[in-house]
Amino acid sequence: MKTQVAIVGAGPAGLLLGHLLKVEGIDCVIVERQSGDYVLSRIRAGVLEAITVELMERLGLDARLRAEGLVEEGFNLADGERLIRIDVANLTGQTVTVYGQTEVTRDLMDAAPERGLPIFYEAADVALHAIESDAPWLSFTHEGRARRLDARFIVGCDGFHGPSRRAIPASVGRVFERVYPFGWLGILADVPPCNDELIYANHARGFALASMRSAARSRYYIDVPLTERVEDWDDERLWDELGIRLGPEAAARITRGPAIEKSIAPLRSFVFEPMRHGSLLLCGDAAHIVPPTGAKGLNLAASDVHYAAQALCAFFKTHDADAIAGYSAKALARVWKSERFSWSLTKLMHRFPDDGPFERAMQVAELDYIAGSRAAQTSIAENYVGLPV
Amino acid sequence: MKTQVAIVGAGPAGLLLGHLLKVEGIDCVIVERQSGDYVLSRIRAGVLEAITVELMERLGLDARLRAEGLVEEGFNLADGERLIRIDVANLTGQTVTVYGQTEVTRDLMDAAPERGLPIFYEAADVALHAIESDAPWLSFTHEGRARRLDARFIVGCDGFHGPSRRAIPASVGRVFERVYPFGWLGILADVPPCNDELIYANHARGFALASMRSAARSRYYIDVPLTERVEDWDDERLWDELGIRLGPEAAARITRGPAIEKSIAPLRSFVFEPMRHGSLLLCGDAAHIVPPTGAKGLNLAASDVHYAAQALCAFFKTHDADAIAGYSAKALARVWKSERFSWSLTKLMHRFPDDGPFERAMQVAELDYIAGSRAAQTSIAENYVGLPV
Repeated sequence: MKTQVAIVGAGPAGLLLGHLLKVEGIDCVIVERQSGDYVLSRIRAGVLEAITVELMERLGLDARLRAEGLVEEGFNLADGERLIRIDVANLTGQTVTVYGQTEVTRDLMDAAPERGLPIFYEAADVALHAIESDAPWLSFTHEGRARRLDARFIVGCDGFHGPSRRAIPASVGRVFERVYPFGWLGILADVPPCNDELIYANHARGFALASMRSAARSRYYIDVPLTERVEDWDDERLWDELGIRLGPEAAARITRGPAIEKSIAPLRSFVFEPMRHGSLLLCGDAAHIVPPTGAKGLNLAASDVHYAAQALCAFFKTHDADAIAGYSAKALARVWKSERFSWSLTKLMHRFPDDGPFERAMQVAELDYIAGSRAAQTSIAENYVGLPV
Repeated sequence: MKTQVAIVGAGPAGLLLGHLLKVEGIDCVIVERQSGDYVLSRIRAGVLEAITVELMERLGLDARLRAEGLVEEGFNLADGERLIRIDVANLTGQTVTVYGQTEVTRDLMDAAPERGLPIFYEAADVALHAIESDAPWLSFTHEGRARRLDARFIVGCDGFHGPSRRAIPASVGRVFERVYPFGWLGILADVPPCNDELIYANHARGFALASMRSAARSRYYIDVPLTERVEDWDDERLWDELGIRLGPEAAARITRGPAIEKSIAPLRSFVFEPMRHGSLLLCGDAAHIVPPTGAKGLNLAASDVHYAAQALCAFFKTHDADAIAGYSAKALARVWKSERFSWSLTKLMHRFPDDGPFERAMQVAELDYIAGSRAAQTSIAENYVGLPV
């Protein structure tokens, strides 16, 4: 097979890119290791920045998002005593939209056949070849048959564990990484959320986040030591702990329900540079991971895809090779700012085992400063809605 | 002897407080361990917030400050490639004033005799007594004679090493502290400054600060490991290093000259709570230390003194004991915010030996974010000019 752009991975990044290229008349093929059902079963983020909503709109695939998504005008930081509301709409003139990543993926996936976007699901042994040449290619096994996909570019949208990043020689790449000394224990339940805006809480017993996927589906998290096992947290114990950490007011409004999903995810900051090598471009988790605090992961993948689509269009339509050469720097400038925001919000809202009384006092002072400063609130808000693309 | 308020320490905090109380007709006496000349010889900060200038104005002692002080409308962060100007005047509507702490002290000291503010210099063995009672007193030796000073209140303005804080029983106090793994090597020279606004630089070789005390007197710093000795830094070596760290543009404008003063000062964050115990109030360095990044030390002492004077006036004029009881919480609320700002600017602008590539990348990302965000610049600016008192 031959195409212009071979995309590795049919998560939201790969699907978004595939659709964006298709709309521009650029030929592409997506190769995904898992089944479509498996991809949809991955429970991930659910807060969309304007850029992510805009991309769906540009594709004409925003109808369900507009109908079912919850437009959020603010969110809250809780410091154990009060809610500090960040009035995002008022401070930035923008909003975010609560709409599950799973739903974004479903909308993109459902539209693929009618738009002629070919996706090979359950492609085994995906491998990248000749990425330093002008004729890179993918090999994989599909329905028991060895396949070869030739392309002008390969775009790796295959997440942290995919083969794309690893195809770049270690000698040309640089890794930046920080692992956090805790994980997030999350519960998804079909109950109405306790609050119509997100609450990030820094409580003496640890972090908690009250979030939602819709008006009828809630997503809550607490941080736990990495030694903790999900089996040790039956639903009631987790609801109890959430009630304590989110404080009495929120606790009184929590509706409990059985977990649809419950898991512990580690927190990591990770950036791989460069995001392009030869004819391979990386987008999203393939190149970088943010801790989930601030909900930047999916949105960062979306802005990468936006830049990648721009660069590929420039290449195929106006033979502008500079756009491809400039992709990594352009994407990374925004990636690093989101990494910074996610890292700083993580540091502000979690209790770190190595922190002493001074570091804890700095958290208290920062929350107190934020509570009283429009400038500080604006800084948080503009990062939350997403810095300009 | 008997007075209403016994003040320990005739640095800027003690002198400011003494004058403020005198103006209000409250009787006070200052006891200082050193000579007046020694106090004046201490080279310290030189950037005054509006609150500090206002206190001098309220005392009618701002004539020389107004005539000789340099009104600064902004300052700069250098990241090795560019100057990021923080346009303080435009962002906050306020300015800071460059005027040496030594000059503030001199103005206050010179005015003391004519205003009947008694100061015992070279008072040895100052000790605090009965601070938990309504009749605390100081003992000290002056001109070979043992003296006793009875008061209704004692205010400790005697700095980090003075006896006042130590007079509070360890069981009631709480210490918050962070020591930094470097010191500031400073040089004072009678040469025009290289720039009319301060430059804080984070260079690959380390931190540098280009500052000034007047249009004819410059103050520069670099950070050095704490193992470094000032003897190893002759003037030329220090000027060379400053030129490298401040970058070619600033370097070209540096005027070299012999050091009037050259020393290495450690950096420390320190807060003692509470700032009042019984009849003893603490002001300034006696209760807290900030690292010098951001120039908050003297200004924080000034706001403490402002709150202390308010509380003491309320007590003596309207018999309001609540004001005294509330002093610590009121002062600490501002102290902690300044501690946070000083700590965060210190972290942003220095290379820490334990930092890995990710932490360094976070500095780069934060500087890059600040360079492009009015909200981030406003947040820095409002802290720099001083948060509301």
